[in-house]
Amino acid sequence: MKSKIKIGIVGSTGYTGVVLTRLLLDHPHAELTYLTSERFENKNYFDVFPAFFEEIKIKCKKTDPSKIAKSCDVVFLATPHGFANSFAPKLIKHNKDLILIDLSADFRLRGKVSNKKITYGLPELYREKIKKASFIANPGCYPTSIILALAPALKSGLIDTNTIIADSKSGTSGAGRGTSQGLHFTELNQSFSPYKLAGAHRHIPEIENEISKLSKKKSKIVFSPHLLPINRGIVSTVYGNLKKKNLTQGSLTKLYKDFYKNEGFVKVLPSNIYPSTNNVRYSNYCHVTPLIDKRTNKLILVSAIDNMVKGASGQAIQNMNLIFGFDENEGLKSLPHLP
Amino acid sequence: MKSKIKIGIVGSTGYTGVVLTRLLLDHPHAELTYLTSERFENKNYFDVFPAFFEEIKIKCKKTDPSKIAKSCDVVFLATPHGFANSFAPKLIKHNKDLILIDLSADFRLRGKVSNKKITYGLPELYREKIKKASFIANPGCYPTSIILALAPALKSGLIDTNTIIADSKSGTSGAGRGTSQGLHFTELNQSFSPYKLAGAHRHIPEIENEISKLSKKKSKIVFSPHLLPINRGIVSTVYGNLKKKNLTQGSLTKLYKDFYKNEGFVKVLPSNIYPSTNNVRYSNYCHVTPLIDKRTNKLILVSAIDNMVKGASGQAIQNMNLIFGFDENEGLKSLPHLP
Amino acid sequence: MKSKIKIGIVGSTGYTGVVLTRLLLDHPHAELTYLTSERFENKNYFDVFPAFFEEIKIKCKKTDPSKIAKSCDVVFLATPHGFANSFAPKLIKHNKDLILIDLSADFRLRGKVSNKKITYGLPELYREKIKKASFIANPGCYPTSIILALAPALKSGLIDTNTIIADSKSGTSGAGRGTSQGLHFTELNQSFSPYKLAGAHRHIPEIENEISKLSKKKSKIVFSPHLLPINRGIVSTVYGNLKKKNLTQGSLTKLYKDFYKNEGFVKVLPSNIYPSTNNVRYSNYCHVTPLIDKRTNKLILVSAIDNMVKGASGQAIQNMNLIFGFDENEGLKSLPHLP
Amino acid sequence: MKSKIKIGIVGSTGYTGVVLTRLLLDHPHAELTYLTSERFENKNYFDVFPAFFEEIKIKCKKTDPSKIAKSCDVVFLATPHGFANSFAPKLIKHNKDLILIDLSADFRLRGKVSNKKITYGLPELYREKIKKASFIANPGCYPTSIILALAPALKSGLIDTNTIIADSKSGTSGAGRGTSQGLHFTELNQSFSPYKLAGAHRHIPEIENEISKLSKKKSKIVFSPHLLPINRGIVSTVYGNLKKKNLTQGSLTKLYKDFYKNEGFVKVLPSNIYPSTNNVRYSNYCHVTPLIDKRTNKLILVSAIDNMVKGASGQAIQNMNLIFGFDENEGLKSLPHLP
Repeated sequence: MKSKIKIGIVGSTGYTGVVLTRLLLDHPHAELTYLTSERFENKNYFDVFPAFFEEIKIKCKKTDPSKIAKSCDVVFLATPHGFANSFAPKLIKHNKDLILIDLSADFRLRGKVSNKKITYGLPELYREKIKKASFIANPGCYPTSIILALAPALKSGLIDTNTIIADSKSGTSGAGRGTSQGLHFTELNQSFSPYKLAGAHRHIPEIENEISKLSKKKSKIVFSPHLLPINRGIVSTVYGNLKKKNLTQGSLTKLYKDFYKNEGFVKVLPSNIYPSTNNVRYSNYCHVTPLIDKRTNKLILVSAIDNMVKGASGQAIQNMNLIFGFDENEGLKSLPHLP
Repeated sequence: MKSKIKIGIVGSTGYTGVVLTRLLLDHPHAELTYLTSERFENKNYFDVFPAFFEEIKIKCKKTDPSKIAKSCDVVFLATPHGFANSFAPKLIKHNKDLILIDLSADFRLRGKVSNKKITYGLPELYREKIKKASFIANPGCYPTSIILALAPALKSGLIDTNTIIADSKSGTSGAGRGTSQGLHFTELNQSFSPYKLAGAHRHIPEIENEISKLSKKKSKIVFSPHLLPINRGIVSTVYGNLKKKNLTQGSLTKLYKDFYKNEGFVKVLPSNIYPSTNNVRYSNYCHVTPLIDKRTNKLILVSAIDNMVKGASGQAIQNMNLIFGFDENEGLKSLPHLP
Repeated sequence: MKSKIKIGIVGSTGYTGVVLTRLLLDHPHAELTYLTSERFENKNYFDVFPAFFEEIKIKCKKTDPSKIAKSCDVVFLATPHGFANSFAPKLIKHNKDLILIDLSADFRLRGKVSNKKITYGLPELYREKIKKASFIANPGCYPTSIILALAPALKSGLIDTNTIIADSKSGTSGAGRGTSQGLHFTELNQSFSPYKLAGAHRHIPEIENEISKLSKKKSKIVFSPHLLPINRGIVSTVYGNLKKKNLTQGSLTKLYKDFYKNEGFVKVLPSNIYPSTNNVRYSNYCHVTPLIDKRTNKLILVSAIDNMVKGASGQAIQNMNLIFGFDENEGLKSLPHLP
Repeated sequence: MKSKIKIGIVGSTGYTGVVLTRLLLDHPHAELTYLTSERFENKNYFDVFPAFFEEIKIKCKKTDPSKIAKSCDVVFLATPHGFANSFAPKLIKHNKDLILIDLSADFRLRGKVSNKKITYGLPELYREKIKKASFIANPGCYPTSIILALAPALKSGLIDTNTIIADSKSGTSGAGRGTSQGLHFTELNQSFSPYKLAGAHRHIPEIENEISKLSKKKSKIVFSPHLLPINRGIVSTVYGNLKKKNLTQGSLTKLYKDFYKNEGFVKVLPSNIYPSTNNVRYSNYCHVTPLIDKRTNKLILVSAIDNMVKGASGQAIQNMNLIFGFDENEGLKSLPHLP
């Protein structure tokens, strides 16, 4: 039997950190070796999260790059945007063989850091590259939901790339654990509104980068994020002009099913079932329904993911599995919870 | 002083009915004369709704067209789609001077019924016609939010009418008080998903009808409704290609402010404040933020209304006020509730 | 006609402040004269709360005790606990005729401040005293719900005062607008738990003070607050041993109805209708259902209020109305909103 | 290797049924053999629940007692109260060796059915009996939360059994999947109220039965259920007079920890951490905090469970594990999900 790989999680008490921790605890080939927390250094992990009372017997440690780098095989950076930028090179300096998986946006648009090639960790598009990678820029939650919805249509040239609009709606966990007036319960509860419209969101270059590669053409999109008063889940409703006039709904669904036929985590739904946050929650699945609006000759592509799993920590583990040669769904087999 | 007008509400114990009842109770010129309920005939209104315990001292009556028509000056039809179709003619037969305000979709696309001209009751577009009307087809909640967002852009020819997409998100009260699996609390709570996509929703002809009039051109739209796990509120995010290249954000906001400058219920927000369901809840306001996405040369028009007030019962009362020559905001002065 | 009274609100952008502001705006005898905000000094009130966009045209001012005291007839202190303690004497110093209504806990257990007698502002128990008062300590939200539930039973000696347990559940607005980890949306959403159990909550002395007066006997209670994932509303379920063996449910309900027969805001419900937060929300009502558990010979008294209205700002206005001789329900006539 | 046991679930598309199905799918020794559904006979399980799209490849079958009894080793009855009563004897008739686990209330107060002894399936109290049982009456969700909170105090005679009050708050999934006005999303959302107070709830005899056994004394309780606007979780706040005057908080916590020291699913929290629905959700844990209210000499015992797991389907699997000699936590190792 293979010995277990040693896991480090920097920022283990944030939301992506706690989801990583919980998932990796059940992973048969992983050993949680070094969990850091700036706020809760030296505290028991279960004192921070009483949900794990006396069950996760790990202490939070100091964010010491040398110790982390030397004691781990793989380190997940589950830190706020801007942190990994300077921290990742320190880890690499102390252990050049270390596998790094960064869940922040810091490296998603860069080619290299400290001589390590950066690989964009969307397995459905870059599986073979990921297998050989040592530094993963884990995709953003919104980009994951939008790119998986668009990929088959873009690859097959169905859609006019100058007409793409992604209207996305996300639960609040994507905004992290830090407090703010806008995330105060009494302000947000039962409310709904957009934010950072008209080109203002940081995920746009990441999305456009991938869309341009898929369509082999420099492409721009409209991206409109909205905040849902729920904890988990993203639904993206993506629009674009259909280039082929006589495409039937049946052919479109088939094209999508064929594209994803070997993918364990992407489910193409028939045209009468729509993706819902409820149906992917706590799982690594992405549900996609591709539709044709015949009246206007538009494609409508709807996807749903759990932003904390397929949109962050689950996908990060999927990448780790690929790199280490484990089954791709190891640690990620859990189905959504109903009701 | 004018004596009070006599009000009938058919379907007074449904959601639009109860909102009408509560609002009209505070209306200085209205007298609740005849409230019907098929389910709760002869029951005290406050036994149906203990929120009004011993405060609304009215009994629910039988849905008898003759008695209603003869005892009322104005009748609101707050009934499920399909009912008013055959019921309105009966009322008119018994009292040809009766003012009728139908909140269902039954008459929105028709010109006449029983010799009465039907007027589409969107005061911001048809105020003068409404003042002389005797039969109002009260607009749908989604159409109200979408048309008010689009009207200034369409009237001034800013937008390519072949490119309009309305991505709307509504609270659950719009689906009415009738129970169903999909509206069961445990199924819907914390979920989010679209429904009736790709041309399937009944509101599309109504929206296209108005858009075509505004743009003086037969127009089609993509309309995507989504269900929010909240009781009240609609946000519509509406997209279209900008026809004028060099329009600035400042000019766009000014154009919208000018268009609505005499409107008491439509508030044009500056480009850094977005409409939110929370900020219009329980009021008759419509908040609109018009935006330019320079990168893609699109207009993004966001509106928020309370679907039960400006999207239904409040707008119905606004129409009644216009017909009877009352102040347009009589009974509708209540501001949103925070927090 | 009486000229309008001049109103000051210290802390006008907190939750009790915004509810006061909104309610007093509709009050026919009130003029909002001086609204303070430490955080938003010199800002338009509607810039702080876009819900009132262009409708509340007031600027937030500095918290200057001299200016407030001299320009107002009555000042509401809607400030965090601890602030009024030193601020109220400053106001009185500048204007000894000023009417003060403190919504915090600072003066609820004290007899006097700066030569002003302090009156506990629960109108249902102290109406005549309140009419002559110039300094009101406005009751806490939990105490209001518990005392109104218990008063008839205590006054008539039905309950063993050594056995009282109040198990209360409150929405989050009672915790104020300040952010904290525990009030972060993603942490609190869909959760439920108690807090400050076993004698730890600050409201206990206030409740015991009133209970002891009502029963004419030094009394202690168990008080268990719980936090509900909703914005508004308190339900208190109060238990005590019934001293009278053969009391019927009918006599109990009658006793409660008689006790509150002249009260416009307290509604005694029959034994088959229970109080619900939904049925009092946004109103100044208190719903009470008194019950006998025959099997165990206990009284079970259930009450519901909106913690922001009858539990805070509405009750403060009720007190103001009494002091100034207005109708007691002036500005407070609004019924609950459904659905 | 032991071959897998064959599982039947009657009522597999209700809420306890779907939780059983999902949990047993991951159980290493279980094989889902016969799932029935009256409503969805012959449908794919994943057509009923798109959350399991193409993942649970089972068809719902007819509720045929002969076929079920003959093809299964163990049958879970996840049916509405009243159904098992007549259905269980039919199953036994067709296969007298069948293991039956009934999740309804039908057999909880009975000694025998069709010559099978009925065992109350609360493993923390009856583990050895359960191991030998062939017919389990699985405890109710409220009783589980209340009995686990009380057991150590009752066993050690700490509490006056005539003074027990259980104030419980439950999420909505406990009310099942059937629709009703009271469970309609728009009615229930953001509301909170009690129901079936003063001795009216069906769970009372079950709770009193167990309390009487634990205290060796016929005991009565006050039980007050309340409905929370959340899907999952019960918090019970239980009160009783402390019989021992000088008990310290430390000794109380120790007594509870000792009582549950060999229990994998019951966690006794220190006095400064309170149980929360969030911290047990989707897991089989029960969190308990025992407290002393020194001021009134009362015990306050707070517990939290997930009503669908430890309160129903999880506990049913725990019982199955005991009967078949599997590890008691097999299939139940999943920790709560955060955030």
